[in-house]
Amino acid sequence: MPRYTAPVRDMQFLLHDVLTIENYDNLPGFSDASRDVVDQILETGAKFAEEVLFPLNKIGDEQGCVRNSDATVKTPDGFKEAYDQLVESEWLSLSADPQYGGQGLPNVVNVASNEMQSSANMAFSMYPGLTHGAYQALLAGGSEEQKQTYVTRMVNGGWSGTMNLTEPQCGTDLGLIKTKAVPQEDGSYKITGQKIWISGGEQDLTENIIHLVLARIEGAPEGIKGISLFVVPKYMVKEDGSLGDRNGMTCGGLEEKMGIHGNATCVMNYDGATGWLVGEENKGMRTMFVMMNEARLGVGLQGLAQSEIAYQNAADFARDRVQGRALSGPAAPEKPADPIIVHPDVRRMLMDSRAFNEGARAFLYWTALHGDLLHKSEDEKVKEKAGDYMALMTPVLKAFLTDRGFKSCNESLQLHGGIGYTKEMGVEQYVRDARIALIYEGTNGIQALDLVGRKLAADGGRAIFSFFREMDDFLGENESNEALSLYTKGLKDARDRLDEGTNWLMKNGLSNFDNAAAASTDYLNLFGLTAIAYMWAKMAKVALEKKAAGETDPYYDTKLKTATYYVERLLPETAAHLAKMQAGSESMMALEADAF
Amino acid sequence: MPRYTAPVRDMQFLLHDVLTIENYDNLPGFSDASRDVVDQILETGAKFAEEVLFPLNKIGDEQGCVRNSDATVKTPDGFKEAYDQLVESEWLSLSADPQYGGQGLPNVVNVASNEMQSSANMAFSMYPGLTHGAYQALLAGGSEEQKQTYVTRMVNGGWSGTMNLTEPQCGTDLGLIKTKAVPQEDGSYKITGQKIWISGGEQDLTENIIHLVLARIEGAPEGIKGISLFVVPKYMVKEDGSLGDRNGMTCGGLEEKMGIHGNATCVMNYDGATGWLVGEENKGMRTMFVMMNEARLGVGLQGLAQSEIAYQNAADFARDRVQGRALSGPAAPEKPADPIIVHPDVRRMLMDSRAFNEGARAFLYWTALHGDLLHKSEDEKVKEKAGDYMALMTPVLKAFLTDRGFKSCNESLQLHGGIGYTKEMGVEQYVRDARIALIYEGTNGIQALDLVGRKLAADGGRAIFSFFREMDDFLGENESNEALSLYTKGLKDARDRLDEGTNWLMKNGLSNFDNAAAASTDYLNLFGLTAIAYMWAKMAKVALEKKAAGETDPYYDTKLKTATYYVERLLPETAAHLAKMQAGSESMMALEADAF
Repeated sequence: MPRYTAPVRDMQFLLHDVLTIENYDNLPGFSDASRDVVDQILETGAKFAEEVLFPLNKIGDEQGCVRNSDATVKTPDGFKEAYDQLVESEWLSLSADPQYGGQGLPNVVNVASNEMQSSANMAFSMYPGLTHGAYQALLAGGSEEQKQTYVTRMVNGGWSGTMNLTEPQCGTDLGLIKTKAVPQEDGSYKITGQKIWISGGEQDLTENIIHLVLARIEGAPEGIKGISLFVVPKYMVKEDGSLGDRNGMTCGGLEEKMGIHGNATCVMNYDGATGWLVGEENKGMRTMFVMMNEARLGVGLQGLAQSEIAYQNAADFARDRVQGRALSGPAAPEKPADPIIVHPDVRRMLMDSRAFNEGARAFLYWTALHGDLLHKSEDEKVKEKAGDYMALMTPVLKAFLTDRGFKSCNESLQLHGGIGYTKEMGVEQYVRDARIALIYEGTNGIQALDLVGRKLAADGGRAIFSFFREMDDFLGENESNEALSLYTKGLKDARDRLDEGTNWLMKNGLSNFDNAAAASTDYLNLFGLTAIAYMWAKMAKVALEKKAAGETDPYYDTKLKTATYYVERLLPETAAHLAKMQAGSESMMALEADAF
Repeated sequence: MPRYTAPVRDMQFLLHDVLTIENYDNLPGFSDASRDVVDQILETGAKFAEEVLFPLNKIGDEQGCVRNSDATVKTPDGFKEAYDQLVESEWLSLSADPQYGGQGLPNVVNVASNEMQSSANMAFSMYPGLTHGAYQALLAGGSEEQKQTYVTRMVNGGWSGTMNLTEPQCGTDLGLIKTKAVPQEDGSYKITGQKIWISGGEQDLTENIIHLVLARIEGAPEGIKGISLFVVPKYMVKEDGSLGDRNGMTCGGLEEKMGIHGNATCVMNYDGATGWLVGEENKGMRTMFVMMNEARLGVGLQGLAQSEIAYQNAADFARDRVQGRALSGPAAPEKPADPIIVHPDVRRMLMDSRAFNEGARAFLYWTALHGDLLHKSEDEKVKEKAGDYMALMTPVLKAFLTDRGFKSCNESLQLHGGIGYTKEMGVEQYVRDARIALIYEGTNGIQALDLVGRKLAADGGRAIFSFFREMDDFLGENESNEALSLYTKGLKDARDRLDEGTNWLMKNGLSNFDNAAAASTDYLNLFGLTAIAYMWAKMAKVALEKKAAGETDPYYDTKLKTATYYVERLLPETAAHLAKMQAGSESMMALEADAF
């Protein structure tokens, strides 16, 4: 039977032992995040994900969302009840600002909670996920009145939030947005236009839906510099906070998609809807990027989350299914055949996924902790480095974790053989659901361009140099650590290739942008492999220390063996990515467009 | 709008210029395959695929097959009419033996025809595809009476064929088969048991369905050595060839699958059905392997075929969709944005697919030609080499073409962005349809084991040595060909890595089978990349010769540029596969089964 078991032990190891979040108890929120509190959050979060959300995952896929004739949308059976439980248990407010009703805990703890929800039910978790992004954007760019009106009610889950960016003629290139905003005498705007692919644009979970909409104020400059951000509630909000009239937008239809059927992907028609400007005129992209960066980390998380649940079910299947005999002689002579987990090529699929999952989790949580430091630290140096890292790592996390997460879901399907291709085991749903994560919030190709085109060069390369310095410090500190040498050697080789790739980009990408773009996806992969090699070296170090201190939990041995596999079996890919980058753009660009 | 345009030009280049099938006109069938005849087959085949099969592809996906309450199965609207056209146009008999009603043309021409049908509608093409495999098995192992009774009617398409191998408890490990065969006095057998995942097990296209069923005769030895093959018609066949009573099997249900919805995947319940032994008792696997090898090439073909149609639609989309500006300055200043084909990372996705498709097509057709030589040549040396190659290349073609073909379908979806994830463009169907090909007819992991465990070692390594010799001869002959040097250098590097990988297997795999199995998938990938490097070098050589002879068709330039891309951008992966192999099995096997 398909299952999801939240990887609580691994989360504890990361939060308590690798990231040691207890060490930051001088920062707001962290002081409340004692080991006991965090463990309790992980355990109740696991229960909620395993027992409430996971059983709805297949139902959501099968039923999908339905648009009624009155343009309302029905979510799958059980989603409303589960959402109510989510609200009651205050999962949405975990890391939100206490000024607006949040619990103020570190976001890195919230990320762990989100991972569990996303593994258990990706389509469901997108509803609160986008609300989280929307209120972050309002916190970053909204007026105090907007924060009081909207954010407090989004934090408690009573209202949800959405992002309205895409239009039929523009996805990646938001400069082409046509949706109009006409200023009214009362300071509001009338919003008119069509937005597509709006996740949760209409649903029956919350009493109000707060749309954040990119539009062009009449007379605004062309292109990206004429885009403003508006807050457009589904129901108007009266002075006392109660709901007033229905605003002028409707869901015009639902997309038929490959997956995430439980999430309503809406065409939203705005027909003179009343909205209010968020932040300054024509500066909408700035605030939207707050939301988008938040969302990008959330999408990277989805890649990991689907990979985790797919892996767990593949491991179960590999232990249960008997077929063939071990090459080294029967492992279960009393059975008609051995469980397929005896076969090396089955192990390869499991270990590829496992080494990715645990490394990716460390990379994601480590980055999320930097997000907390950015927002909560008062040390300017710490804040600067944290801000640099958030900017630099976001595209890598988004693209690398979704690319590899999808690959890993596919390996899990493959391990199941024929039955994996049927609806019976649930694993083909993970593949279909995970597939969107490579696309939305900026395709993975766009992430790669963001990395090489913007993030590397920002502030004279300060962020990437800082990252190299941190890895080099780690390598220096552990130079004489024999027990760690396999992992530091692996990290060193990867780091050197990343360095070579970075230098290649400096030399060849600046004079010919096509070279940079041609190299971008391989560079991002090289970066991701290296960052995770650093995570594995850090985790291996802690595991070795724990063992040296007499800890007997087999978890640490397993961690070290998985680290070894990562170095031996995944890091060799760095060489291929570097070599591809160095081929330059010529053969990639050689064909006439008509020759394709 | 989604489209399929058969790559006739590329097929002509391969058949006429690279494989020069005209040179074999001393062999039966080849003498009828003049350039004109072949071109006419390609052109009418293209028309049939593009105009008849392709328009039914989406319909088939949406409607799927329906099992009626009387256990009959309705295929999607239009499938029956298309099938009748297929029969009328004699597509099924193209390369079949004239003794049984076939046209006797080379199979390599049939493969081209199959590629078109499979690109245009994979689910549909599986019906005739399995019939082809089934009559090949009967030709190989059946009695003359069986051939006359069944094969003639399968060749003309009036009856179809199926393969019944899998049972709930056994897919990969056929030694676990439980289906029983009880000998009857009249020489027939009563077959009882359940078979699952039977493609086309029931349908409304043909008047009879000829099931080839693996079963165990009462008292037969355990395991794989007690398996016999039976022919079990849906309707009994009278002496005059007309249909008699309904035989004792029914379709118990249809699988709900991720894709290939237009093909009926049946649970088949045999309840004392009358069957006849094919070949000898307990030697069923031998004949079934004829069918399976045939089917494996057909599955490799599906990987290529889906990759081709996905690529074509991605290329169209990349030319049409405007979004953003070229990094080197606006390419279409009159438009609000440039077509996305100006972007290097978009080119990367297209070129990865294109370089794979054209190389894979060459590899597949080249192997199919060896199949023709095996069956038609009278030169023992030629036959031996052809047989060796068919055995050696089959697992590589099956696994490499489906793995890469699926990857390529995914890249095409990715290129489409959000709309690719919706049902609108059709590309997500190609991904879902292509996904099965990595699994059925032996998972890709099984193909890798077959390659390293059986095919390499067979006859003292004769096949692989023969392949190295052929590549080395080519490299020797072209040593001083400057214009070809980029491609021969690429081939040489890949060949050296394959050699190193082969030697590693000899040294480390024989003493420890786990090492061989742990290396198998990477070895197969290394093999596939190298074989296709050889194909690209051969194609580049012909293209250069054509240009030198004054041909001005831009096709040859495009071919050379794509060859360059293959060498620069795909061959670097060989290094990673070699390094992974050389890591051995230790870290892969290190975890206890319970630790996963």
